[in-house]
Amino acid sequence: MVDLIRIGSLAKTASTSLLNLSEERVNKVLLDVANLIRENAEFLKERNKIDMSVAEKSGRSASFLDRLLLSDKVIESIAEGIEQVAELFSPLDKTTYQYNNDFQGISITQKTVPFGVIGIIYEARPNVTADAFALCFKTKNAVVLKGGSDAINSNIAMVSVIRQGLIKNGVDENAVTVIEDTSRETTLEFMKLKKYVDLLIPRGSASLIKSAVENSTIPIIETGSGNCHVYVDKFADVDKAAEVIFNAKTQRYSVCNACESLVIHADILEKALPKIALKLSEKQVELRLDERAYKVLKSGVPATEQDFYTEYGDAIISVKTVDSIDEAIAHINEHSTHHSEAIITEDKNRAEKFLNEIDSSSVYHNASTRFTDGFVFGFGAEIGISTQKLHARGPMGLNALVTTKFLVTGNGAVRK
Amino acid sequence: MVDLIRIGSLAKTASTSLLNLSEERVNKVLLDVANLIRENAEFLKERNKIDMSVAEKSGRSASFLDRLLLSDKVIESIAEGIEQVAELFSPLDKTTYQYNNDFQGISITQKTVPFGVIGIIYEARPNVTADAFALCFKTKNAVVLKGGSDAINSNIAMVSVIRQGLIKNGVDENAVTVIEDTSRETTLEFMKLKKYVDLLIPRGSASLIKSAVENSTIPIIETGSGNCHVYVDKFADVDKAAEVIFNAKTQRYSVCNACESLVIHADILEKALPKIALKLSEKQVELRLDERAYKVLKSGVPATEQDFYTEYGDAIISVKTVDSIDEAIAHINEHSTHHSEAIITEDKNRAEKFLNEIDSSSVYHNASTRFTDGFVFGFGAEIGISTQKLHARGPMGLNALVTTKFLVTGNGAVRK
Repeated sequence: MVDLIRIGSLAKTASTSLLNLSEERVNKVLLDVANLIRENAEFLKERNKIDMSVAEKSGRSASFLDRLLLSDKVIESIAEGIEQVAELFSPLDKTTYQYNNDFQGISITQKTVPFGVIGIIYEARPNVTADAFALCFKTKNAVVLKGGSDAINSNIAMVSVIRQGLIKNGVDENAVTVIEDTSRETTLEFMKLKKYVDLLIPRGSASLIKSAVENSTIPIIETGSGNCHVYVDKFADVDKAAEVIFNAKTQRYSVCNACESLVIHADILEKALPKIALKLSEKQVELRLDERAYKVLKSGVPATEQDFYTEYGDAIISVKTVDSIDEAIAHINEHSTHHSEAIITEDKNRAEKFLNEIDSSSVYHNASTRFTDGFVFGFGAEIGISTQKLHARGPMGLNALVTTKFLVTGNGAVRK
Repeated sequence: MVDLIRIGSLAKTASTSLLNLSEERVNKVLLDVANLIRENAEFLKERNKIDMSVAEKSGRSASFLDRLLLSDKVIESIAEGIEQVAELFSPLDKTTYQYNNDFQGISITQKTVPFGVIGIIYEARPNVTADAFALCFKTKNAVVLKGGSDAINSNIAMVSVIRQGLIKNGVDENAVTVIEDTSRETTLEFMKLKKYVDLLIPRGSASLIKSAVENSTIPIIETGSGNCHVYVDKFADVDKAAEVIFNAKTQRYSVCNACESLVIHADILEKALPKIALKLSEKQVELRLDERAYKVLKSGVPATEQDFYTEYGDAIISVKTVDSIDEAIAHINEHSTHHSEAIITEDKNRAEKFLNEIDSSSVYHNASTRFTDGFVFGFGAEIGISTQKLHARGPMGLNALVTTKFLVTGNGAVRK
């Protein structure tokens, strides 16, 4: 087993040294790292080949292999991504509160500061390694990365290249570390490294997130799990409804902001459902229907209660009929993962009620759930999509990677 | 065992209904509750007597009994506290981000919203019951309270009075619930009520906080534990140092922002330590000294390494000698609970370095650590002092009890 205490302790020391880097120097390091990644493309591809060959031999799917591959094109986009991060405004050193307590003789300033050490647990995409480093380094956090075993050779190679950029600039190389042991035991031990790691972000499957929720003693931000709903209200424009649902369901199946369930008002069921079903049939989407919806379509698959809790990640959608907007809201709040939900209606008051009462990170009126994304929302970056309410909710940009600190000055002030 | 699922589910339903209360109505309820508490003073005192009698019989300390007692004066101050909360500005419904993505045809607004259901686990002070309700209700959150067994009769009585105020105003009474079973098993089960509780705030002993960190699946905010340091730099004004340390150590011993450890630069040790010790002797403070400090004073108690990790909560202070400001910072970051730390120095650059590199919620220059407090900081309220970095750090006012939500509108917008 690797020495996690040592890794944590070195990362913590590095995080203190990062506090004294100027913003210019941070950006210079990022640009150097981007160029080093380009210069080391052959080395990265060579190490990636080992991972690819293991994955091929173990019969991984084409889409899995596609996400694992470091091609020249992927490497160039990784380098460009880091350059874009360098160009973003820094969220650090902003005054978020100021108060002079004259009675007590003190001045209080609250400022944004780095977290310190951020831990990230993720799965097979090696581009996440460079991306997570860039966002953490931009915000002067040290980062400890625990990637998946499938990409371990690619990840180790990527971090060795990034560290060249740090060393070249006289920056503590322990600002980025990859945990080379990808065993489950090490991952569980990593989740307990509270003394050294200030924030843990698990990115990946529902089971990874669940394991972090149950085992981590480090504060975590839950990300990604998305059982998203589109509710077609009785005052919906049916054509809009069909277009939005088609986009939300089929534009990309595997993403967390794809629509998994259609909730439809009984009063519009007969008029809207056949049109929506016809549109979805363009991509052979399977419909899992409740009793009333099945009676209207007379085809499709009957839904079980389990369907309404399922994130398919595939060309499947469940359909639930409701008798009121209140029933729709209650159904969605009970079954959703609090990621993204939409209402399709021409009635403004009903839209407002839905936006107000739906308990999700991002709530839409007459728009596709597929928009929940840090780039679409204008952050210029995304470290994940939070489905919890503490610290960050919804797409997380650089702002999610800073915390605050109170700085208080006096002249020998004592509490009265 | 009580039915926690039922309690959680009723609280969740209540939290949705609170979303539609106007701010005026929220404040009206708070004022009514304050008056009902005054009107029911005899009832509250009577129920409190049962708790007091049990506590007396089991030989609780005078200070414990003092904190448990609901006297007329305490009841009046509870009522006034609720009235003050009614007067505070609401942190809800504030726009925190706005972005029009014209390319995609959507408008994105991020707004502050209630968490939903907040759980609070605390110990024997019955005034916390009313206080926690007021702050949660002001921010339109439902609250589930798990107080200590010592105050259970007082807490049940207080919540029954608060509920009268809710019912009188047509508000769902499940906006506040007290868990009547105070067993350890129920507390542990409560910490797993993630489906219904959005945020858990443990307030109290270090062992309670530790149990929440290790067992809760609900996101928590750690509060309160305070091993606070004052560092006397070689450029310190010795008189200021003595006054600040005397205040930070002795103004109140049991509070989390009291100073527990004095860190002192070797160059000023002989000059400063005797003066500081003399001042502390006014209140018979016991000094636990490292070797060099002991050599200077030639009296006091030798410190062990364990002393430097100890929050005494008493008239005891540890003394550590260092050879540089870097050593001071490293020592403090290693031993502190990241609550409040101070530097005493006349050198501005060294003060800046300390404020920058100390990893604590509140960092002071020439001022007492005793100031870390929501009221002193100008929030008009305090739900606790966070010693973690996620969501809230340092004293928490109403702002800490709200989260955000993205509201996105389009006109049939689909992702390109």
